[in-house]
Amino acid sequence: MPNINPLRLLDDLKRLRSFGATGPGVVRLALSPVDVEARRWLASRMADAGLDATIDGVGTVFGRSRNPGPALLIGSHTDTQPTGGWLDGALGVICGLEIARAFAEADETRHLAVDVASWSDEEGTFSGLLGSRSFVGEPVDAALQSAQNRGGQRLADALAAAGLADAPRVRVERGRYAGYLEPHIEQGGRLEASGKALGVVTTIVGLRELRVRFTGQRNHAGTTPMSIRRDAGAALVAFIARMDEAFRALADADTVWTVGRIDLEPGSMSVVPGEASLYLQFRDSNAQRLQAMEAALAALVREVDARGPVRAVLSSVDEPMQPVTMDAALQQHLARAAQALAPAQWVSMPSGAAHDAQLIAQHMPACMLFVPSIGGVSHDFIEDTAEEHIVLGAQVAAAAAASILLEASAAAAR
Amino acid sequence: MPNINPLRLLDDLKRLRSFGATGPGVVRLALSPVDVEARRWLASRMADAGLDATIDGVGTVFGRSRNPGPALLIGSHTDTQPTGGWLDGALGVICGLEIARAFAEADETRHLAVDVASWSDEEGTFSGLLGSRSFVGEPVDAALQSAQNRGGQRLADALAAAGLADAPRVRVERGRYAGYLEPHIEQGGRLEASGKALGVVTTIVGLRELRVRFTGQRNHAGTTPMSIRRDAGAALVAFIARMDEAFRALADADTVWTVGRIDLEPGSMSVVPGEASLYLQFRDSNAQRLQAMEAALAALVREVDARGPVRAVLSSVDEPMQPVTMDAALQQHLARAAQALAPAQWVSMPSGAAHDAQLIAQHMPACMLFVPSIGGVSHDFIEDTAEEHIVLGAQVAAAAAASILLEASAAAAR
Repeated sequence: MPNINPLRLLDDLKRLRSFGATGPGVVRLALSPVDVEARRWLASRMADAGLDATIDGVGTVFGRSRNPGPALLIGSHTDTQPTGGWLDGALGVICGLEIARAFAEADETRHLAVDVASWSDEEGTFSGLLGSRSFVGEPVDAALQSAQNRGGQRLADALAAAGLADAPRVRVERGRYAGYLEPHIEQGGRLEASGKALGVVTTIVGLRELRVRFTGQRNHAGTTPMSIRRDAGAALVAFIARMDEAFRALADADTVWTVGRIDLEPGSMSVVPGEASLYLQFRDSNAQRLQAMEAALAALVREVDARGPVRAVLSSVDEPMQPVTMDAALQQHLARAAQALAPAQWVSMPSGAAHDAQLIAQHMPACMLFVPSIGGVSHDFIEDTAEEHIVLGAQVAAAAAASILLEASAAAAR
Repeated sequence: MPNINPLRLLDDLKRLRSFGATGPGVVRLALSPVDVEARRWLASRMADAGLDATIDGVGTVFGRSRNPGPALLIGSHTDTQPTGGWLDGALGVICGLEIARAFAEADETRHLAVDVASWSDEEGTFSGLLGSRSFVGEPVDAALQSAQNRGGQRLADALAAAGLADAPRVRVERGRYAGYLEPHIEQGGRLEASGKALGVVTTIVGLRELRVRFTGQRNHAGTTPMSIRRDAGAALVAFIARMDEAFRALADADTVWTVGRIDLEPGSMSVVPGEASLYLQFRDSNAQRLQAMEAALAALVREVDARGPVRAVLSSVDEPMQPVTMDAALQQHLARAAQALAPAQWVSMPSGAAHDAQLIAQHMPACMLFVPSIGGVSHDFIEDTAEEHIVLGAQVAAAAAASILLEASAAAAR
C-alpha cells in the first residue's frame, strides 16, 4: 500500500508557504507575481514526481499521470485570500502531489493514475472558482474579457504578464476519471469541538446572497419628531428581528445566516437615515430549505413594504449556489480508510464553505476530506492545523485513493 | 413703527442665494471662495445700511450700529451644509439687515441701535459655531491651529486665503446689548403640520452623541454554526431594540433619538462580523431627561457586556450640549408682536436643532423666532419657505425688536 512521506509532505507545504509568507500567514493572491512564482515551483515539483505538468490558460497547474485511466484527480487551490492562511487550499494540492509520489513508490499502486491540480483563483481575486469552472467547461470568456482585481488589474493582463496569454486551457477528459478527491482544512470549529481528527464531507452547502433595501425619508435628527419619522435604519433593525424569527422556524442545527454588512445613508448622527441596506447570506445543505428561506424572506419584505411607512425591496447580490451532494461510494472509501487508520476519530459532516469540488462534482463522482482547523480559524494569518492531523489526513486520503483506483481498475478490467 | 420692505428683503435673500447657487439649493461652505465673496457682498450691504461693517479674524461679518446702546444684536449664519438650502441661516442675517434699514427709516426707531451679525462656520465645515464661540470668548485657538475641512484644507489657510489672517476678532461688548434675536427657518415640520406661521422658541434642546462598540469573534459565515457564534452585528441589532424600549419609557413627545450610522466589520457577506459600532444621538429640552437617558444607556451597555458572549463599550463621540432656555422677557416681546400681526397663527415651541443663539444666550438675553419649512425639509437643495411667511417673520421680528429696544432705552433712561 502507498505510504505517504510525512517529512516530504510537510517540507513541500512549508516551501509553498514561503511564497507570499507574511508573518505566520500568506498573501498569495491569484496570478500576482508571487502566486505565478509559486505555480512555477509547483509545476516543477509535479514534474519531479513524474507527472506531465503544465500551467494552463487560466493559471491552473495540472499534473497528469502518464499511466492510463481510470484516474483519480486530486486537487484544490494554492491562491489565498488577501489575509490568507498557509494551509487553506494548499493542503489539498500538496497532499495530491505527495499521494502521486507515494503511489509511484509502492508496487501495488505504481501502475495507477493520480492526476493533481491546483485550480486557479478559487478565492475570487478576479473571478471565483475560475480554474475549476474552466476545467469542467463552464463559460469563463466573460471573466477573461472583463474581470478585474481590486487594484483594477484585468485578468487578461495578469495572465499575459504571467506568460499564459496563449497557453491552452486544460479541460476534463471524458472517460478518464474514476473520481475527484479534495482534501481541505475544515475552516470551522466542529471537528475541534467534537474532538475528531477527520471529516468525511456529505454535502457542500448551497447559498444565497441577497440585499434588502429600505427607503424612508431623510430628515433632521433634531427637528423631526419620532411620531412622523420614516427612518429607514430603524425599519432595517426591526426587519432583522422578524427575519431571524422566520429563519429560526425553518432552520435545522446546520442552517446558517449572516447579516455581514449594513449601510445607513447618509450615515451621519444628526440625520435620520433615508436609505438603509442589509446584505444577507444564508447557507444550507438542503435545496428545499434554501428555497423556503428565500420565500419567507420575500414574503416578509412584501409585508413590510406594503405596510409602510418605509418601502422595502429584495434583490439578489449574486447567483444562488445549489447544495451539492458528495458521491456516496467515494464517501464510503474515505470512511473505511478513516476507520482503519483512525478508528472513531472521524465524522460525516457537511461543508459550510464553497469549494472547487462543488463544480467538479457535476461532471464526475467527487468527495472531500477535512482535517481540523485550530480554533476554527481560516482566512486569517493565524489559520493552522496540527501537523499530526495534516499527516493523518494525507495518509487516509492516500489509502482511500488506492482503494478507489484499485476498485475502478478491477471494474474496468472486467 | 419700523416697516420692513418686503421687496428689498426678498431681493437681498435672492442675491445672497446667487452665491453658490446649485439648482434650487446652495453650496456655500464656510470660507470657501464663494462664501468669502458672499461675505464681502454682505459687508457692503451692511455699509449701505449705515452700519460699520467688518469681516473679523474668524470670518464673522459684523455690522455695528453707530447709535449708542442699549443695542439689539440680530443675526444667524450665511454658510451652508454641503447640500444646503437657500434660507437656513441666511434668512436671519438678511432679516437683521432689513430690520436695521427699517429702523433707520422710521422716526420712532432711528435713534435705536441694531447690530447685525453673520457668524462664521455655524455648520462646522471646519469647526461648528466658530463665529459665535469666538464672539462670546470661548476658546477657538485649537480650531484655528488644527481644524481642517473634509478636503484637508486648514482653517488657518482658508482665513489667510480670504485675507483675514491678521483681521481682529469681534468680541461681545459688555454693557451694550439688551439682547440677541435670531430669526430662523424651523428646519422641521411642526409649524406646517399645525397650520401655524410662526414659532416663538422656548428652549434649544441639548444633545448627546455616543457610540456603542460591540466586540465578538470574526468567523467564516459558512462554517460557523449559529450556536457558537459571537456575532457583533447581531448583538448590535438586539441592543437597539432594547435601547428603543428603554428610551420610550423615558421620553416625552418632544424627545428624539437617532441611530444614524452602523458599521459592521469586516463588512463582508461571507464573514460573521467580529466588530460592530452604532452611532447614536439623542436630544431633549430637559437636562435631567438627557441625563436619565444616558444613564439608562450606560446600564444597558454594562448589562449586555457582562452577560456576553459579545463585549460592549459605550463612549462619547462629542462633548454633550446642554439645553438652553430662551429669555422669558424676550419671548414675551416676540409673542406680543406675533399675536398683534398674526393672531393665533403662532405657537411656542422648542428648537430641535442647534443654533448660534445657544452660545450667545449664555452671555446676554437671547430669543429665536421660527418660520415654517415647507415639508419640514432643511439641509437639502429643496429647502424652502413661503414668501408670505418670510415677510411675516421679518415684520414680527422688527416689531419685537422695536418693543425690546424701546423698553430697554426707557429703562436705561430711568
